Amino acid sequence: MNIEMIRAAALRLQGHARVTPLLSSPFLDKIAGRRVLVKAECLQHTGSFKFRGGWSAVSMLSDEQLMNGVIAYSSGNHAQGVALAAKEHGAPAVIVMPSDAPKIKVNNTRALGAEVVLYDRANEDRDAIGQRIAKERNLTLIRPYDEPLVIAGQGTVGLEIAAQAAEAGVTEADVVVCCGGGGLTSGIALALVEDAPKMRVHPAEPAGFDDVTRSLAAGKILSNPSVSGSICDAIVTPQPGALTFPIMQAHCGAGVVVTDEDCLRAMGLAYERLKIVVEPGGAAALAAALFYPDQFEGDAIIAVTTGGNVDPATFIRALETL
Amino acid sequence: MNIEMIRAAALRLQGHARVTPLLSSPFLDKIAGRRVLVKAECLQHTGSFKFRGGWSAVSMLSDEQLMNGVIAYSSGNHAQGVALAAKEHGAPAVIVMPSDAPKIKVNNTRALGAEVVLYDRANEDRDAIGQRIAKERNLTLIRPYDEPLVIAGQGTVGLEIAAQAAEAGVTEADVVVCCGGGGLTSGIALALVEDAPKMRVHPAEPAGFDDVTRSLAAGKILSNPSVSGSICDAIVTPQPGALTFPIMQAHCGAGVVVTDEDCLRAMGLAYERLKIVVEPGGAAALAAALFYPDQFEGDAIIAVTTGGNVDPATFIRALETL
Repeated sequence: MNIEMIRAAALRLQGHARVTPLLSSPFLDKIAGRRVLVKAECLQHTGSFKFRGGWSAVSMLSDEQLMNGVIAYSSGNHAQGVALAAKEHGAPAVIVMPSDAPKIKVNNTRALGAEVVLYDRANEDRDAIGQRIAKERNLTLIRPYDEPLVIAGQGTVGLEIAAQAAEAGVTEADVVVCCGGGGLTSGIALALVEDAPKMRVHPAEPAGFDDVTRSLAAGKILSNPSVSGSICDAIVTPQPGALTFPIMQAHCGAGVVVTDEDCLRAMGLAYERLKIVVEPGGAAALAAALFYPDQFEGDAIIAVTTGGNVDPATFIRALETL
Repeated sequence: MNIEMIRAAALRLQGHARVTPLLSSPFLDKIAGRRVLVKAECLQHTGSFKFRGGWSAVSMLSDEQLMNGVIAYSSGNHAQGVALAAKEHGAPAVIVMPSDAPKIKVNNTRALGAEVVLYDRANEDRDAIGQRIAKERNLTLIRPYDEPLVIAGQGTVGLEIAAQAAEAGVTEADVVVCCGGGGLTSGIALALVEDAPKMRVHPAEPAGFDDVTRSLAAGKILSNPSVSGSICDAIVTPQPGALTFPIMQAHCGAGVVVTDEDCLRAMGLAYERLKIVVEPGGAAALAAALFYPDQFEGDAIIAVTTGGNVDPATFIRALETL
């Protein structure tokens, strides 16, 4: 993995992925006690940054691979990103999703033309299911984070952050990223090493699913004790990726752990102050920026709101925190 | 009023107003039966396009005028736009607001450092109140729409639409704009005459407050029978402006009238499909684009979502339409 792969992905994504805005509000600055910039990836196609990685990978497939089709496993955002990227390339897609994924994510994935295969998150191994179906049906498996082309696609968020923050006069900052398997976090970290070397990436995770934070502290890959039980479904993953972890070790600062309640409050403030819809797992970084000021040292924080695919009932809980 | 005034305003706004994104979703295209692009001005500073007009006007004041301060009357969005523009220029601001304006708008205006004077929308004339206080305290009155510098500021939305739509491959379209007094509608229309001559602007209004639609049809300025009674508070105005109406007459197509319920449904779809927060009056144009397909002829519609300052209780009503 290197910056050239990210720049190549940016070229492939040009005109297809959206350059999402870097938002801000004086009200959020006041809460955080410093300047807060929000990279609104919830405004990306399919409502999350995952479209970038999906497009980055699918756009490199041969005509034969496209004709056979692709397969992905995902709690829902990678599902939609790969489904839309496949559809726009004319390729069939099979998506393996946990049976407890938010309904909106399952429905959208189907509506984007993909075939959805549900599995039991507690008792089945999605990686094994994905690999089995891929083999049986000759599909190309697009992993959600441990895949160089996917990491390169997500890393384009970092290129945009560097350019947009510089335009806003910010070249030194803590960059907080909602972190599941680490594809986005490691991609952004790699991009910033080159394009904004005074920025430092910190993963943000929900309490109980802080595998990356603990792994970084321990210097080795550790797993979470459970596989479900947070409203932050998008970033609940068993452990950091084999590819992503060494990148995060080399380039990231300490992780920040937030509660589900913090995420709901951050969602409410994003609604009120930025007019964006953020899902719980997509709000972890903003929650860290707003409610854990002691974990950061600099004058500016850039928080990536990674997704906005949230059921109305959960969004109402966020509104009730206001 | 001419395009040069809009281009000059764009220069003054550069680096201060946000270039808001042009969003889209295949799901919305499907509902409308054509391509739908959404200019998300709810993502502008203070949550509405009004910051543009406020900045455009305040940035032209002399040092003495800035020292004395400004005054504006507004249901809430112009209030916040002027308040922030004044604050960033170091000028005091007095804002005259109706006593039934959404709480969030009153609170935000105060939090942006402005002095808020409340009036009774049914029995008092805000123009008279504004002019009286302006005279007594030597403040510069910044009218919400019948003011060339304000129209020029709002017109910068049109310049951006022309450039962003062209980048997306769209040069012919119906451009639907939520319309109160007509400052934004006339500004966009003027900008497009020059920069996208194959686009045609249509004002969108709530039923019962369709003064612009009726005035355009009648060829003369007509008033609304009532002054309140729609959830679309941002675009409930007594009649088209004396300056804005002739511009709309010269350059706009027919208006489209939508119901409050249409606006709530459009807000729900903007939440679900675009991940943006839109207020009722800011959703009228999207409602027209999605639910009144027979009113448009072309293959593409560009809808401007003009604001996102909505109380949670009203937003929950929108979520309940999903």
